Amino acid sequence: MTDAITYELLHQDRRTGARRGVIHTPHGDIQTPVFMPVGTQAAVKAMRPEQVREMGAEIILSNTYHLYLRPGHELIREAGGLHRFMNWNRAILTDSGGFQVFSLGQLRKITEEGVRFQSHIDGSRHILTPEKAVEIQNALGSDIMMAFDECAPYPADREYIRDSMERTLRWLERCKAAHRNRERQSLFAIMQGGMYRDLRRECAERMVEMDFPGYAIGGLSVGEPKEQMLEILDDCVDYLPQDRPRYLMGVGTPDYLFEAVERGIDMCDCVEPTRIARHGLATTSRGRINIKNARFERDFSPLDPECDCYTCRNYSRAYIRHVFKAGEMMSAMLLSNHNLHFLINMMAGMRKAIEEDRFTEFKKEFYDKYYGTA
Amino acid sequence: MTDAITYELLHQDRRTGARRGVIHTPHGDIQTPVFMPVGTQAAVKAMRPEQVREMGAEIILSNTYHLYLRPGHELIREAGGLHRFMNWNRAILTDSGGFQVFSLGQLRKITEEGVRFQSHIDGSRHILTPEKAVEIQNALGSDIMMAFDECAPYPADREYIRDSMERTLRWLERCKAAHRNRERQSLFAIMQGGMYRDLRRECAERMVEMDFPGYAIGGLSVGEPKEQMLEILDDCVDYLPQDRPRYLMGVGTPDYLFEAVERGIDMCDCVEPTRIARHGLATTSRGRINIKNARFERDFSPLDPECDCYTCRNYSRAYIRHVFKAGEMMSAMLLSNHNLHFLINMMAGMRKAIEEDRFTEFKKEFYDKYYGTA
Repeated sequence: MTDAITYELLHQDRRTGARRGVIHTPHGDIQTPVFMPVGTQAAVKAMRPEQVREMGAEIILSNTYHLYLRPGHELIREAGGLHRFMNWNRAILTDSGGFQVFSLGQLRKITEEGVRFQSHIDGSRHILTPEKAVEIQNALGSDIMMAFDECAPYPADREYIRDSMERTLRWLERCKAAHRNRERQSLFAIMQGGMYRDLRRECAERMVEMDFPGYAIGGLSVGEPKEQMLEILDDCVDYLPQDRPRYLMGVGTPDYLFEAVERGIDMCDCVEPTRIARHGLATTSRGRINIKNARFERDFSPLDPECDCYTCRNYSRAYIRHVFKAGEMMSAMLLSNHNLHFLINMMAGMRKAIEEDRFTEFKKEFYDKYYGTA
Repeated sequence: MTDAITYELLHQDRRTGARRGVIHTPHGDIQTPVFMPVGTQAAVKAMRPEQVREMGAEIILSNTYHLYLRPGHELIREAGGLHRFMNWNRAILTDSGGFQVFSLGQLRKITEEGVRFQSHIDGSRHILTPEKAVEIQNALGSDIMMAFDECAPYPADREYIRDSMERTLRWLERCKAAHRNRERQSLFAIMQGGMYRDLRRECAERMVEMDFPGYAIGGLSVGEPKEQMLEILDDCVDYLPQDRPRYLMGVGTPDYLFEAVERGIDMCDCVEPTRIARHGLATTSRGRINIKNARFERDFSPLDPECDCYTCRNYSRAYIRHVFKAGEMMSAMLLSNHNLHFLINMMAGMRKAIEEDRFTEFKKEFYDKYYGTA
């Protein structure tokens, strides 16, 4: 059977691992490398979907755990699927809920069957299994579904990671067997293995043997030092096939995005741009700024003079500071718009640089400005 | 000197007091009768200004009291005025702050000079005088400025109302004398007089003698029974000149808007459409609905099947209920959009009906559906 999504490698940067590609999906093409905005609860926070689309987004992410609990996947199925329910007609990737239930700490228990947990909303008891996670995602109708895995904690000893990885691989088999609708939805595997190189390798090899249309790297950026993360990432990418997209989960700051793309990552996601927006923070070409800062009180220039987003074209720092301090939703709306646009535009810059075999130069130019070393 | 704004009467409904007109302002024409969305703190809550414009709004309202305290009128003057600061290039009306400071209760003290009050934000001490209210509005650059008046409480005895009205008239003289920039900004007077017909009449006559480009009716819809309010309103309108716009302050539910327009009111404003939106309420052609209601859980129809607003074209009741319950700003964004559109569209319907001398029929058709008596 043909998979719903396919990856096409367009160009490989001459001096780094960075690669330029395109993912074909039933809801349009995705130019890679790509940053995916997150709409956890079927809404990208403080944004209308067409605004996300207008800034260039071709795929957004949503979440199995949250949508299963509220409003329920059967309701979304009745609504005609997640695309229609949330008014987004481009591609959607849904996370499996694994990460979320593992994050519940005391409220969950892992068994071979799956994870028993209590809802963070009302304390009600549930079980998420590989079969259930796939069933939910089939109901949602996302273009890319993620396998139900265990995102192991950091730090964790070798024995724990080995056991966890083995279980994740068994669960992956079960996910694959449970998957319906392969012609419209593709299931990605998630590599685990903690900070252990050989386990990462083994996990990758066994996943690749099972053959998936795409592979994610999970269990990174979970608290480990950046150096260590990048070292592991270097290895992980090596173990993955050239002809499938590679997705580094939960990464979304400019520096991590550059490091990831440089190593051959095609897809990233993070709630950060919209989350920091609600706290009054903006990412700009000259670094991060805090709009609450008194020095912006009478600053009538845009958030980022080099940005051409809706926010920067129409509003001053003074205005955004005012609406933030006044508690107006407008501040989150404007800052979310800018922060998402910034990352999406940065990724477009990376794609162009890769095409021109000048990723390294582009990264240096960006860093020099971003870190003020220019 | 010519006034910044002028009123043109286009047509008078044959059987009611309803009238169709246009207000010419330095920031474009306003078709009347008009409902004015409110952007108290230089932002219409949960809306981008161009969305408000797209639904047909030609004027919005903002507030002297709030903008004086935060971010400060001098800052807005430096920003190039309120239009530019908040990215709204059509007409703006600013309330004088009178209503807000009087609403502070214990935190304010009225003297002949003005009103001493403590900020609701940080408790700092201020005084708002007629001169100050005008100076602030001159700095903001609103097309229509409101005189600084006392909105007397309800109920209040005749003596209190008489004294208050006399002071309001003295303050009105001071506002007029303090007003700069008449060629770009027009000052409207506000009629008071409580529920006393003869005092309303006297107030109106003395204001009209002073000659203003527009007149507002204040001190109504402050808690009195609807019957009484409409009776007073009947009289008030009679005392005002035909060739100036008449503004009924703080009115914004469909029934009050119909009653006001029927009596010859041209302008109304209210925070209600965006406020109720944040509480999950929608105004529809079949009455008000509460999106939190369980019966909407699987209702995949739009908020109002007869509405063609952005929200109704793209989202179901089930989706809006979901994002409301999930605490997403999206719910306020979608409901505010619908509620504002509903009133603006309803006013457009009234304008057309007046042009066709069928205001009474239009009102009956609307009420039959709205109250479910059809």
